[in-house]
Amino acid sequence: MKVVVIGGGAGGLSTASNIRKYDENVEITVITRDEHIAYSPCAIPYVLCGDVDCFENIIMHEPEDYLERNIDVIIQAEVVEVKEAENTIKYHLQEGRNDVEKELKYDYLVIATGGSPFIPPMEGCYLDGVFKIRTIKDGKQIMRWAEKSKKAIVVGAGLIGLEIAFGLKNMGLDVTVTEMLPQIVPRSLDPDMAKIVQNYIEKKGINVILGTPIEKITGETQVEGAIFGDEEEIRTDMVILATGVRPETTMAKMAGCDLGRWAIEVNEKMQTSVPNIYAVGDCVEVYDAITGHNTQSPLGSTAVRQAKIAARNIVGIDAKFNPVLNSMVSQVGNLEFGAVGLTKTSALQNGIKVISGKSKALTKARYYPGAKRIDVKMICDIKGRIIGCQIIAEERVAERVDTMSLAIAQEMTCSELANTEFSYAPPVSMVIDPIILAAEDACAKLQRMHKRKENKKDSNHNISNNLKS
Amino acid sequence: MKVVVIGGGAGGLSTASNIRKYDENVEITVITRDEHIAYSPCAIPYVLCGDVDCFENIIMHEPEDYLERNIDVIIQAEVVEVKEAENTIKYHLQEGRNDVEKELKYDYLVIATGGSPFIPPMEGCYLDGVFKIRTIKDGKQIMRWAEKSKKAIVVGAGLIGLEIAFGLKNMGLDVTVTEMLPQIVPRSLDPDMAKIVQNYIEKKGINVILGTPIEKITGETQVEGAIFGDEEEIRTDMVILATGVRPETTMAKMAGCDLGRWAIEVNEKMQTSVPNIYAVGDCVEVYDAITGHNTQSPLGSTAVRQAKIAARNIVGIDAKFNPVLNSMVSQVGNLEFGAVGLTKTSALQNGIKVISGKSKALTKARYYPGAKRIDVKMICDIKGRIIGCQIIAEERVAERVDTMSLAIAQEMTCSELANTEFSYAPPVSMVIDPIILAAEDACAKLQRMHKRKENKKDSNHNISNNLKS
Repeated sequence: MKVVVIGGGAGGLSTASNIRKYDENVEITVITRDEHIAYSPCAIPYVLCGDVDCFENIIMHEPEDYLERNIDVIIQAEVVEVKEAENTIKYHLQEGRNDVEKELKYDYLVIATGGSPFIPPMEGCYLDGVFKIRTIKDGKQIMRWAEKSKKAIVVGAGLIGLEIAFGLKNMGLDVTVTEMLPQIVPRSLDPDMAKIVQNYIEKKGINVILGTPIEKITGETQVEGAIFGDEEEIRTDMVILATGVRPETTMAKMAGCDLGRWAIEVNEKMQTSVPNIYAVGDCVEVYDAITGHNTQSPLGSTAVRQAKIAARNIVGIDAKFNPVLNSMVSQVGNLEFGAVGLTKTSALQNGIKVISGKSKALTKARYYPGAKRIDVKMICDIKGRIIGCQIIAEERVAERVDTMSLAIAQEMTCSELANTEFSYAPPVSMVIDPIILAAEDACAKLQRMHKRKENKKDSNHNISNNLKS
Repeated sequence: MKVVVIGGGAGGLSTASNIRKYDENVEITVITRDEHIAYSPCAIPYVLCGDVDCFENIIMHEPEDYLERNIDVIIQAEVVEVKEAENTIKYHLQEGRNDVEKELKYDYLVIATGGSPFIPPMEGCYLDGVFKIRTIKDGKQIMRWAEKSKKAIVVGAGLIGLEIAFGLKNMGLDVTVTEMLPQIVPRSLDPDMAKIVQNYIEKKGINVILGTPIEKITGETQVEGAIFGDEEEIRTDMVILATGVRPETTMAKMAGCDLGRWAIEVNEKMQTSVPNIYAVGDCVEVYDAITGHNTQSPLGSTAVRQAKIAARNIVGIDAKFNPVLNSMVSQVGNLEFGAVGLTKTSALQNGIKVISGKSKALTKARYYPGAKRIDVKMICDIKGRIIGCQIIAEERVAERVDTMSLAIAQEMTCSELANTEFSYAPPVSMVIDPIILAAEDACAKLQRMHKRKENKKDSNHNISNNLKS
């Protein structure tokens, strides 16, 4: 059996490795246009900020490492055709000075082409000093440019935007983050929680401009400034566009795979509409576990989980990919924030009535030196079922997000969660965990809501009785 | 309504506070023989080790704080009689120089008398320089004695034993921990996991002696040494007995409450056999969620959860205390270790056939500076249901134990857990969480086991076919 994987990122390489794990005999070829494989794009900001020494460190494997496991990796190769009827791809490769065209036959094709940075259509976006951020090459270019710059504007206050902003700030630049929407991290945090993160980054000296879309980038050949809404021009030496990622679906279209609303359509086996073509990672669309709607989940962790499912199905082991909760976490400076499930905002947009339980507590016993403040916001539907959670603190957030991911996936109510057993020791936790406190707050709010409803019913009942009598 | 609570620890005071939260009008009196209330006994070792400045810091409330919430607290009072038929307790109190006897009427009595350190019956255990460890007074005495000592022996290598050993080591003493059983932390860890903790504490310069019970403590009026098994005497300046805690059930017996195998028997409302007497904390016995057997759960977190249940039932809100998983965590030096559910050892003792999934991984992305090693061991029954987990690392253990507590309580299988969504960012986690890796390992082992069984069946089948033919 021959498997060809297009894409050398987390999704593609994990699919290849998993297939090899399950089956020693499959012929596996991974083909990528990139120079590097198996690096962690999420880590690029942390190289900029100096936490990770150099870009080479975030490359986890070289093509030779895969050869040892009998996985063939072809880098800097451009796939130019997918002949679905013949189970063949054509690709171009530089051999010496010649551009050579080659062919590969497959029994199964895996499309793991990821996404491309979205460049908003506007004046000036291709000037020197304007960067997108996706590959190590992008990271290196940003770093070189930043070394000779004083001011930077980061457009887009999502995770990557904030992380890059911190990276550049740590390099000594004067940094402004701008966001079209009236809050930062709009996809994962509600406004009240976003404000906590915003306060933190402002305290660290990063400027934040909200609710104003970028109009144009100014300059002759090189960026000189940017104009937001009808505001005055802000002078800057560089602009980083962290305005999101669009699924890369060119290969899938060539192969005749159906596209959904957002990206490549796959079933729960990660199989496209073409039976022997699978797709994983940022280029596919998934289902939201709460709303049931199709959505995107452009996360490394999602790609890796999808890769396992695709690999199992390709080698004939039945496996299903579950709808997602988009469990995420990020660290900016010392602040960790994470979220899973729906925000209150997204729940309301989906027509789900919710209440939210909140807690402000500490990460250790109150008297324990070094205890950090922690904020938890838990979203429940009006039956008490937990459908989302957001957590912010200077430590111990990621694992709490995972706990909440389990609670949501298991369809727990706030009242069940409030009675769950959490571990305790003064140096590492509070005797009542902040998650439990938020669940208790949600329970109390639900109770008050139901009481108000009953009272209303009673008083309506009384009114109608009075009318009768 | 009048409620009297006997005991000023986590169980007693949380019951009082919760009753007040639900009902403004109940008359509440808390009565304790101790000088201090509302302190955290779990924090005593951390004062010794210097992490927390002084014993006063771990006292979270003074009696006056409770008075503000209209809760009467009587300290240094000895309850001498519970007249169940008359709903009255008698207690003795020092007023000036006089020992005064007083009475209190109650509608509901809450027994939260905790436990007393178990002193093994042996020669020398009442010599000067031999200490138990339970109250702040004990802590202060140990500290004073340790300040003029060079060598210490801690008897018992459970959580408290290890934490105290680290405290004394940090004070500069030469410390030996001894344990009757052949491993440390026998209640919560399997031998292989215990060995990781043991290696750590030995590296930190603490001596460990296993599998040898203490025979006697030597000395005239003051401790001079200790003899273990038939070994030579070990000279020491002090001995700390961390040999466990026995439920304090004197009050319950006086009140005519039924005792179970280990401690006071309560139903799921935390009600004793006497309907208007409730009991919470270390003095009651509970049910194990996995085995269904009655057991003890002498943890501050358990007491606090029981207190909420007792309070709710006393004020007339229905609430049930769930069987326990004994979710625990501890920190010795920089090492955090925790466990929840059954160990492999305890599962086998209970006649449950199990397999275990293990992972050795990191707490951050591999390339991220400061990533610590993490060890996970997950215990599953042969249907794959997770029934226990042990986790050790230099960070981020407690919350992972909580995640596993949820997984076990929700009766998840290793295969369900392996498909669960965890959050990921390079500075705070790995793209595949160590918990997921352990779950995958468990799945693989189960699969191999089932294959072996099938092969055996097949070969038996072939043999019988051969016999037939």
